[in-house]
Amino acid sequence: MKLDDIPTPALLLDLDRAERNIAAMAERGRRLGVGLRPHIKTHKCLELAELQRAAGASGITVSTLYEAAVFARHGFRDITWAFPVIPGRLDEARALCEETGPELELGLVVDHEESLAAVERAGVPFKVWLKVDCGYHRAGVDPAKRASLELAARIASSPVVRFAGILSHSGQAYSARRPSELARIAERERRIMVEFAARLEEAGVGVRAISVGSTPAMSRVRRLDGVTEARPGNYVFYDYTQRVLGACSLGACALTVLATVVSSQPGNRHCVVDAGALALSKDPGPERARPRAMGRIFADYQSNRLDSSRYLVSLSQEHGIVRGRFPVGTRVRILPNHACLTVACFDEYYVVRGDRVVDRWRIWRGR
Amino acid sequence: MKLDDIPTPALLLDLDRAERNIAAMAERGRRLGVGLRPHIKTHKCLELAELQRAAGASGITVSTLYEAAVFARHGFRDITWAFPVIPGRLDEARALCEETGPELELGLVVDHEESLAAVERAGVPFKVWLKVDCGYHRAGVDPAKRASLELAARIASSPVVRFAGILSHSGQAYSARRPSELARIAERERRIMVEFAARLEEAGVGVRAISVGSTPAMSRVRRLDGVTEARPGNYVFYDYTQRVLGACSLGACALTVLATVVSSQPGNRHCVVDAGALALSKDPGPERARPRAMGRIFADYQSNRLDSSRYLVSLSQEHGIVRGRFPVGTRVRILPNHACLTVACFDEYYVVRGDRVVDRWRIWRGR
Repeated sequence: MKLDDIPTPALLLDLDRAERNIAAMAERGRRLGVGLRPHIKTHKCLELAELQRAAGASGITVSTLYEAAVFARHGFRDITWAFPVIPGRLDEARALCEETGPELELGLVVDHEESLAAVERAGVPFKVWLKVDCGYHRAGVDPAKRASLELAARIASSPVVRFAGILSHSGQAYSARRPSELARIAERERRIMVEFAARLEEAGVGVRAISVGSTPAMSRVRRLDGVTEARPGNYVFYDYTQRVLGACSLGACALTVLATVVSSQPGNRHCVVDAGALALSKDPGPERARPRAMGRIFADYQSNRLDSSRYLVSLSQEHGIVRGRFPVGTRVRILPNHACLTVACFDEYYVVRGDRVVDRWRIWRGR
Repeated sequence: MKLDDIPTPALLLDLDRAERNIAAMAERGRRLGVGLRPHIKTHKCLELAELQRAAGASGITVSTLYEAAVFARHGFRDITWAFPVIPGRLDEARALCEETGPELELGLVVDHEESLAAVERAGVPFKVWLKVDCGYHRAGVDPAKRASLELAARIASSPVVRFAGILSHSGQAYSARRPSELARIAERERRIMVEFAARLEEAGVGVRAISVGSTPAMSRVRRLDGVTEARPGNYVFYDYTQRVLGACSLGACALTVLATVVSSQPGNRHCVVDAGALALSKDPGPERARPRAMGRIFADYQSNRLDSSRYLVSLSQEHGIVRGRFPVGTRVRILPNHACLTVACFDEYYVVRGDRVVDRWRIWRGR
């Protein structure tokens, strides 16, 4: 099968590019002296996780219990569920451990006394990470607070669970205005985490692991001394947002949506493609992108050239509105704003090398 | 099972409310003298389509060929694929007709010579609707243009396909600033369509059907003289956008996302729930909503009271950021901005009556 034969809308995974991205990030982790625990919420795909494992990944990160279950049932044994535990789902987490057996290391994340108590009630010796807020201000304890040291000590002395270490996510990197800012954000995250660990050690709480990460921070960080692992996810594919942040080149972007122009009226200044909000998501992309757009169109994919005058200006459920016109029937290759949300719109990848379709891989979406 | 036992995040379908919405719209269609062909892209659910059929729906509308195939295989025989035909998918459409047999009436939509030619090449006597632009300016031919009459005549005289009639979608109703504007938009759509049909008749092109519709227009339209059918979809559930438009009351909103507060740090002014962009979609809701928010939280669902001080201000993939705090473990019921996109995030509904879970219904998502 060739690219030209794929029914649209379709999700294309450029395997040459993804392989290069996986190899480059693995090499980057080795040079920085940290383990890699890739976040598979980006791709939700067993085959890609296998490639990451083959490149040396020490384990995987997931964002939902469904992802944990799928990957555990397919041979992944070291999994961090990097989302603040949902108390009502702990019975399912316990059942998964019982089903998979003691070789499954399922790490959970807490940032609150209440969550820890819920995990302890589940009665399973889970590995528990303490989530630390390093400036993103989404979740995580404030490392400057006395109560945060106390919560770490509570986990470390728990009669039920095991203290895994401390974990952060530098999501504020997505608001960086220039690439140098990414490096500063990453260094600040590193310093806060290492200093917090030192204070914990002083207080008698041994910290075996320090886990950090986001793709933009990892793309620019200069050193990770003291950190033990990083959890980037998006880097497998990158996307237009990462490009604008300066985390990647256009030639690294491995995920596109193939679409067909289905309506184009003479006299209009727009046309319509069959990729709308349920193919691209309604992610508006980075604020500093000019022009703002809901998706970019490649003028020439092989030479990494975007069409500067034609792009998606708005999306309804299945319609994508393109500023500028193409003839009806034209097939376009769209670079999404946000690869992770785009993947979650589809059930499978068309895996391509050049213009050959070499495979179709399942996307495991669920809750 | 009770509401309290449902694992989060979960999609709740309030069946009492949905039944009332279905009955009310069926009654409205009868009073206006038009058939109803509900758009099932909103719910993607066989059970709900059965309820719509039982209430008198003359057929269904779908937005993807996958939806057409699923509903055809489950006994729905009169289906309009209300999306400009995708030339590369016509082989699949033909295969579906061959599989289902001649009792399947699959209506296609075209607004371009090129699309009509592609449909004719498929060699199946499809019913073909001509899409007309009544002011939304997304797809559809300009009814004022000579070429539009000619395209209709081309369809009507096709040796292959059958001319179904003319079809429009008043999507501009979603930009209305007040309910009275909805009525004006609907009347304008009606008038344009009826006049266009009259000109076609004059030119010797018989127009057997005039299909219009959107939920907001249907909610306020005063008469539909000359129109034969309407295709609202969202009305089964409604949502916050419809509420702001004035298309429904809060008590009609039948779709909510049940979520749990998973992180809440002392000193912060926000907390985090387990419903993010993959539970609610990134639909920003109506521009004139104050405050702008990514989702509203019911203070009291039974009495239809929203929490005025706590609502979702931003969403990442699985995290929902709530302005204002709740204790960790609190379960909240979220009214989405856009029901259709929210449904497409889930695989099933928890069907509830009051606080009892009475069933679980599958959501058929695919392409």
